[in-house]
Amino acid sequence: MSVVVVGSVAYDGVETPHGKIERMLGGACTYIALASSYFAKTKIVGVVGDDFEKSDEQLLSGHGIDLEGLERVSGKTFFWAGVYSSDMNDRTTLATDLNVFADFDPKIPASYRESPYLILGNIQPALQRSVRSQMNGLRLAGGDTMNYWINDYRDELLQTILEWDFLLINDSEARLLSGEYNLKRAAAKILEMGPRTLVIKRGEYGAILFHGDSHFIVPGYLLEEVFDPTGAGDCFAGGFIGYLAEKGFDLKNGHIDPKELSRAVIYGSVMGSFCCEKFGVERFNTLTRDEIDERFGEFREFTEF
Amino acid sequence: MSVVVVGSVAYDGVETPHGKIERMLGGACTYIALASSYFAKTKIVGVVGDDFEKSDEQLLSGHGIDLEGLERVSGKTFFWAGVYSSDMNDRTTLATDLNVFADFDPKIPASYRESPYLILGNIQPALQRSVRSQMNGLRLAGGDTMNYWINDYRDELLQTILEWDFLLINDSEARLLSGEYNLKRAAAKILEMGPRTLVIKRGEYGAILFHGDSHFIVPGYLLEEVFDPTGAGDCFAGGFIGYLAEKGFDLKNGHIDPKELSRAVIYGSVMGSFCCEKFGVERFNTLTRDEIDERFGEFREFTEF
Repeated sequence: MSVVVVGSVAYDGVETPHGKIERMLGGACTYIALASSYFAKTKIVGVVGDDFEKSDEQLLSGHGIDLEGLERVSGKTFFWAGVYSSDMNDRTTLATDLNVFADFDPKIPASYRESPYLILGNIQPALQRSVRSQMNGLRLAGGDTMNYWINDYRDELLQTILEWDFLLINDSEARLLSGEYNLKRAAAKILEMGPRTLVIKRGEYGAILFHGDSHFIVPGYLLEEVFDPTGAGDCFAGGFIGYLAEKGFDLKNGHIDPKELSRAVIYGSVMGSFCCEKFGVERFNTLTRDEIDERFGEFREFTEF
Repeated sequence: MSVVVVGSVAYDGVETPHGKIERMLGGACTYIALASSYFAKTKIVGVVGDDFEKSDEQLLSGHGIDLEGLERVSGKTFFWAGVYSSDMNDRTTLATDLNVFADFDPKIPASYRESPYLILGNIQPALQRSVRSQMNGLRLAGGDTMNYWINDYRDELLQTILEWDFLLINDSEARLLSGEYNLKRAAAKILEMGPRTLVIKRGEYGAILFHGDSHFIVPGYLLEEVFDPTGAGDCFAGGFIGYLAEKGFDLKNGHIDPKELSRAVIYGSVMGSFCCEKFGVERFNTLTRDEIDERFGEFREFTEF
């Protein structure tokens, strides 16, 4: 079943200890959609400028991604640039040129509206909410947010996530949103804000899934070389929603085996780990579903006892 | 089968966001032995001053710990004091009064020498080496070290661990010892230094076991309240060696199912998590083996998918 992904499509300039790329395809929507596309039909909603390259469009369409909702407007595509610390655990933003993204007003094409799965990348909460209201018959909807919205748009954000089935955020965002440092307490508070499923991403340390009274913890995959962590969290989100869509789960109305949610978290982790192996979206030029399933098996091997 | 534990027996002054204790039983040997005592007969080698309290001796002997190797000399017991940061991920040392520990020269009682399991807490590598040479018929020997020895006693340390079956260190120590930031590369280098088994402890994020070409990763237990992390790494070590001794494994001469090493890492994680639930060794006043096995089961539940 199909997944609708809404969020930024961008160009990124990234510098890591392994090198520097002046301009490459990026953006949350891009990463989520590429990762999701290995599991389910994926449709994107975003905006780009007239500088958007044909080859980048081809990378997306080559993955079977529906681009009907990718608006082209006059001007420049959103550009972000940043540099990572030597251990790649911190990054400094060097440029954030919103360009055409400043006026992004996501419009859902009619052909997308019956999609049962919706994932909202990190954009203004009111826009996330408006997108959700344009969808019919959702089985599962949720998304991501960030510190800026938690701090400065708190009420709007709370109204928005109240309607979500799942929320995917990182540990510092979970702490900020809940006002609790301890992640178990933080999760308990956030689960009272609406979403029945919460995934807290912990970067290289993996992720924790909270669902009902139980939780599941997966450690991060041990890469021998992290080339570029840009987009890893979004690829996690894409693997998560993609797997649930592939299986046709209905978190909203039906029941779901919590172990299947755990497996969705593993597929998320798998996609995040592949993302780090090359700069930007480069790994998706060659990545195959067989490689993905093989790495899923590796997760089983290195966590079973 | 019995375990010999060598290391510091101390008094600690500890301040965490949850409170302050001026003076309580501590030291690596103490924590390792208490944790190990739930699995196997445990014998300690250490030194204390004439201020060592009867009640502390009783806590140890109450756990069946053999105190024949606990030397009493005139003077004061080793005292350490520290204060934890608000998130408890960092601590500042306020006092390190070595006292009688300054002249610690571990002597292994004759009744200990045939013990098949030896674990060496963090002391000067030459002393660790001397202890090992006093033992006969070891099945498994290894231990811990710290940044100070890695930096200033590197050659002595390398000679020492060359003879070890296992090394338990934390991630920053593994990086320092190997000169590699990436833990997979770091582990590969350390496994060439002697130990066939390496456990890298990652604090709240759990631990990684490296053995041969494979690895096992366990996330940390999610506590709702961390009262005091002092001793958690040593309790990890005690659970690890204790479980292997209980099972009678022979890492040196025989074969071992790698899954059993993984289970030892889980028992280590279980003991470390209990340690954090109260100040100092307090949790060991009431902890039972049933609680330990129950938490082992919880680890299975929250990691299986």
